[in-house]
This record gives sequence, structure tokens and C-alpha cells, in this order.
Amino acid sequence: MNEPSPPAPGGPFRFELLGEHLGVRRGRYHTPHGSFETPCFAPVGTRAAMKGLTPAQLQETGTELILANAYHLHLRPGHELIERRGGLHRFMAWDGPILTDSGGYQIFSLSHLTRIDDDGVSFESVIDGSTKRLTPERCLQVQRALGPDIAMVLDVCPPGDAGPEVVATAHRRTLAWAQRQRDLHESWGGASRGQAVFGIVQGGTDPELRAESADALVAMEFDGYAIGGLSVGETKTQMAVALEAAADRLPTDRPRYLMGVGTPEDFRVATARGCDLFDCVTPTRHGRNNQAFTREGILKLRNLKHAEDDRPLDAACRCYTCRNYSRAYLRHLAVAKEMLAGVLLSLHNIHYFQDVMREIRESVPVGDAAAG
Amino acid sequence: MNEPSPPAPGGPFRFELLGEHLGVRRGRYHTPHGSFETPCFAPVGTRAAMKGLTPAQLQETGTELILANAYHLHLRPGHELIERRGGLHRFMAWDGPILTDSGGYQIFSLSHLTRIDDDGVSFESVIDGSTKRLTPERCLQVQRALGPDIAMVLDVCPPGDAGPEVVATAHRRTLAWAQRQRDLHESWGGASRGQAVFGIVQGGTDPELRAESADALVAMEFDGYAIGGLSVGETKTQMAVALEAAADRLPTDRPRYLMGVGTPEDFRVATARGCDLFDCVTPTRHGRNNQAFTREGILKLRNLKHAEDDRPLDAACRCYTCRNYSRAYLRHLAVAKEMLAGVLLSLHNIHYFQDVMREIRESVPVGDAAAG
Repeated sequence: MNEPSPPAPGGPFRFELLGEHLGVRRGRYHTPHGSFETPCFAPVGTRAAMKGLTPAQLQETGTELILANAYHLHLRPGHELIERRGGLHRFMAWDGPILTDSGGYQIFSLSHLTRIDDDGVSFESVIDGSTKRLTPERCLQVQRALGPDIAMVLDVCPPGDAGPEVVATAHRRTLAWAQRQRDLHESWGGASRGQAVFGIVQGGTDPELRAESADALVAMEFDGYAIGGLSVGETKTQMAVALEAAADRLPTDRPRYLMGVGTPEDFRVATARGCDLFDCVTPTRHGRNNQAFTREGILKLRNLKHAEDDRPLDAACRCYTCRNYSRAYLRHLAVAKEMLAGVLLSLHNIHYFQDVMREIRESVPVGDAAAG
Repeated sequence: MNEPSPPAPGGPFRFELLGEHLGVRRGRYHTPHGSFETPCFAPVGTRAAMKGLTPAQLQETGTELILANAYHLHLRPGHELIERRGGLHRFMAWDGPILTDSGGYQIFSLSHLTRIDDDGVSFESVIDGSTKRLTPERCLQVQRALGPDIAMVLDVCPPGDAGPEVVATAHRRTLAWAQRQRDLHESWGGASRGQAVFGIVQGGTDPELRAESADALVAMEFDGYAIGGLSVGETKTQMAVALEAAADRLPTDRPRYLMGVGTPEDFRVATARGCDLFDCVTPTRHGRNNQAFTREGILKLRNLKHAEDDRPLDAACRCYTCRNYSRAYLRHLAVAKEMLAGVLLSLHNIHYFQDVMREIRESVPVGDAAAG
């Protein structure tokens, strides 16, 4: 492990490491909108809305941190519009911590006409097909206007099957852009002004590139570090190797965020390698597709076998759905294509993911950090 | 007005008339699952689910009584399946009073191949196009299995533009079917066994037929009386005339339910003519179509003019949506086609309808019933 880096420069942001056990870090991250316990799972409300769920329902699932996407909100309704409404927290009525993804991944995965150069990226808007231009600086300005607690740098995300040359160029640009954004953030006063900025380690499945990326970003002293570009088609082994190469070089006093990952199984693997933060659309997307995560595996609710099943989705779950409904009822909703199916299954899935995270946290005794 | 009929035969059911003023009756109807204040608006959960809303959210709107549809539930998932789950209350996790519509209106409005005879009706299932047969007796058995607090008789609903002969035949059959269902209900022990049955006054827009229908049903001594077949294309004046002809002949000690109506304006007109119960899909349907009922009229949320409007939908509304969100946010959700738009607008609309009903109730001083 590296030596801890100097104290975070930043005002209201502080990562408290409460304990460490078998590689799992248990902590608490403080932000201007309250703290969240880590390891933490953040559900994704891409367009400043969780699919069909109110903030009141989300809070009941144990959710403390949520995600939104700067790229989507920049395109619609526009970040200036949200800034004029008082920022994202007020706009979407979420009082807790918010993290916005920069949208690098979306720009590269949703647009067919992306053209990238050293200065920035031109892409086709998913809203109306018009050509848009984003530079690293602009991306940070967008997020400053949106006002989340944590902003992510704009990075370059090559596809999972990209050749070494494409990966190397993406790597170089990602680091150059990171430096420009770190400088801009610093010129605004850094995290002490109420917004933390996290750097994103890239490098595909190449351990050396991953290590180099991590080292370079750590030298820039970001408020936290994300590991990006995983869960895009690589094998579980490749993912583990890349993860380890990066995570082992990151400072212990800053949160480590594994982007876009994943499933309860992924959480167990990645927390054991020191990751603190996760986000994924899986619980809500699976919910809308009538699939429920349970301790006995994924249930497909449209299946006939649930038609007369009086059991809740998961006997150990205390979510609203499991406290009130049978699999039989949820199957009825799924077959009848009732909106409430997606709502109740998403609620359950998020609650289930939060339960998994709580179990992981509680596996670490508080106070053992020094021994870690 | 007629003389009050003898006390209701029925155990847990009792209509308390608390006051009367300018034709408006203020009351309370007691059922095995608690009481509801009248005039009462019941949102519609056709398939044992309110579109996208949980019972917890519904309760917050001030809703006390909800509707489901026996016809839809008979076809899918099947009333026996729901009976095996412990009945509708448990199945859909609604502890308060439930009323099921028999589905007469749906059989006649949703099916193109309806064939009716004196014994019953054959129709095409909306689920799979198969031919189904329902008799009045079968319809009551279906509702007995579902177990709502209030069941509705199966009636014959001619279209709003039907000729006099069609209306007369429908009228005759409706009364004959009502008698058969009243007899069957009585043979089960009547309302004392935990389920009230309401008769349905038909007769189109013909005041004489309406009066005759009401008189015949009153003689059968139902637990309550509905006025059906309105709000299907007739003018507001025709509706008012038919309503008055029927309502004036109904006993004062039983609830009067105006089926499928309507809007806040309709409620003011119909409560002034002594109606106590209303149901309509309007608040949820308009909600899903991005329209909000407010004290300044209906707002169409996709309209550009709301894009930067920081006001809530309705300044006087205390619903979850109005306490938390601006029109600007709701417009963003509507334009982005986010599920949450339908949820938040449906919540608001139901709450708004409940506010209207509360205002109507509170316009009647308690204790003036004797002077009515």
C-alpha cells in the first residue's frame, strides 16, 4: 500500500476509515448533504429521477447516496435550467448526498458519431441527433452548475474490445483531461467550495496501464478515485486483475469508487479489494423487467410457478414489497403489465442491494483500521 | 323524498347521515374494513393495483375507499386464485374498504362480440379473445370470492346513443337480474355475512325509466344504490335530469353511488343532488398523460411555459408532489418520459380530488340532518 496522502484539502468532505477486515474497508464519507456509510451502493437516477420511485420510497430502502448523469441533464433539461432552480438537490427533492457521473461512458456508448481529439469530444445528442461538443472544462462547469456533492472528471472510455493503441491513446487523454479538470477545480477553491471531484482510473484490462493511471491521478490529489471502464465486456478475471492493479495504489484516506458495478456477487469481490462505492442500474432495470434479486437467486416473476406462491420475494427481506406482497400478487402485476410491478420490484431490488452492503459493512468490526 | 326504508339488514354495514345542506348529504359509511366519510371519491385500481402507486402512497392522499373490477380480475388472475390468497384485501395489501364493480359496463364497452339474453351475457375476453359467459348469479359468486366490502350487481349497459327499444330491453333485464342477485345474496345471509350488494339504477336519459328503475330496486331492498349508465356521452343537462329522477326516489338511509363520474365540477353538481359515492379513472389517467388538476384548471405539463416555473402544481395543495416539486421538475419528467411523472402527477390528482371532496363535506354542518 502507498502511504496515506496528506489530508483532503476539502472543507466538508472527509473519509473516515472505521475498520478494515479481510481487505474490506468500513468507513463513512462526509459531504455537505450528510454522510454515507461505506461500502455504499448508490442507485442510479440518470435524469434526476429514480425510475418510478419517490425519494421517500428510496430512503426507506436504506439508500444514502444517489447518482445522476451530467451528460443527460446537460442535454435535457439543461444544467443552467437546473442551476436556476437552485441545483439538483432541490430540483429532484433529494436532501442527501448526490454524485453525478460526467457522462464519459454514455458519450462513448450511446453515440455512433463520436469524434474525439486532444481538446474534447464531439458527439451526437441522444435527444435530437444534433452535434454537441464537450471539453473536460465544460464538463466540470456543467457539474458545478448542477451542484452535486461529488462530480466526476470527464474521461475517455474505449470499448472493452479496443486494441492496445486505442487503449493507450484513451489513457493518455484521460490523464491530460484529468489534470486540466483538477487545475480548474483548484482555481475555484477545490472541495472547500462544497463540491468534491473524483478522478477516474482507466487502462482497460492492462495491469501496467491501470497502475500508471492510478499513480498519475494520485499525484494530482483528487478528492476521491474511481475505477472506470470495467464491467464493459471483460472477463471476471480480467476485471479482478485490473481492479487490483489500480486499487492497491490508491491512497487509503480517500474513497474508491468502482463505476457501473454491479451485482451482489461483484460487491463481495470488489469490497474485498478495498472498493468503497458502487453504482448500477441493475436493481431498477431488473425490476422493470419483472426480475427480483433474492437470497435464493433471481426470480423471474412472469414465470407460472409463482402464480399461487404466497411467500414474499425473500423471506429475510424487510422491504415494503416483502412486508406486504406475495409472489403471486407480483406475478399478477407482471403478467398484467401493471406499472406497480416495476415500482414494487425496483423497491425490493434496491433494498436487497442495500442489505447486501449492510452485511458487508457489518462484517468489519469497527476500530480495527489501525490493524489493517 | 320517499320515506326512509327499514334499517339495513346488514351486520357491519351502516350509513350514518351526519348532516345535510343545500342538497348535499354528509355521512359516514361503516364496513367490515373500517368506515369512509361521504361524499367520497374512490380511485380506481381496476386490476387490483393503482397505476404505479402503493397503498401507502394512496393513504397519504386521503383515500379511504378504492375500487377494483370484478370483470378484469375474473379473467386474470381469476377470482378463485385471489380467494385462495385470502381475498382482495390481503392480495393487494389494502386494509380499508374496497368496492368491486361487477364489470357490466366493461363487458359492453370493451367487447365487440357481446351477445346478451335473458339468462346472461356471452362476450369476448379482453385478455385472449376467448368466449366467456357470465350470468348475474355467477357475477355475484365471483365477487363473493374476491371478498370486497361492497359488490355491485351485474347490469346491462346500453350505449349512450341506444334507441328506446334497446334501452327498454336493457332496463327490463337489469331489473330481472337485480332481483335474481338480491335473492342469491339473501340466500347467503345478506350483508350480515360481511359483503354489501348495491343495485344499479339504469334507464338512460329517460326520466320515467330512471324513476321506474329506482322504484323497482328500492322495493328489492339493496344495501345501497348506484346510478349507472351516465357519463357515457349524454349532455350535462340529460345527466342532471336522469340523476334527479333517480336520486329523489332512493331511500335516505342508504348510500348513493354515481358510477364512473367524474371531475371536480361533476362532484359539485352531483353531491348537491344527494350523491354520496364517486369513482373515476380520471386522476390516474390524466396523471399518466402528464395532466394535473389544479384550482386554476388543468395544467398540461409538457407545455414549454412550465419549463422554468418554480411554483408547485397548486399553491394550496399539501400533497407529496406539491410539497416537494416545482412545475419545472414535473415538466422535465414529462418531457423525458420518466415513469416518475405519472406517479407524482397521479398522486397529486388523487389528492386534489380528495381535497375537493373534503371541501364539499365540510360545507355541510354536522347535526343538521333532521332539518334536511
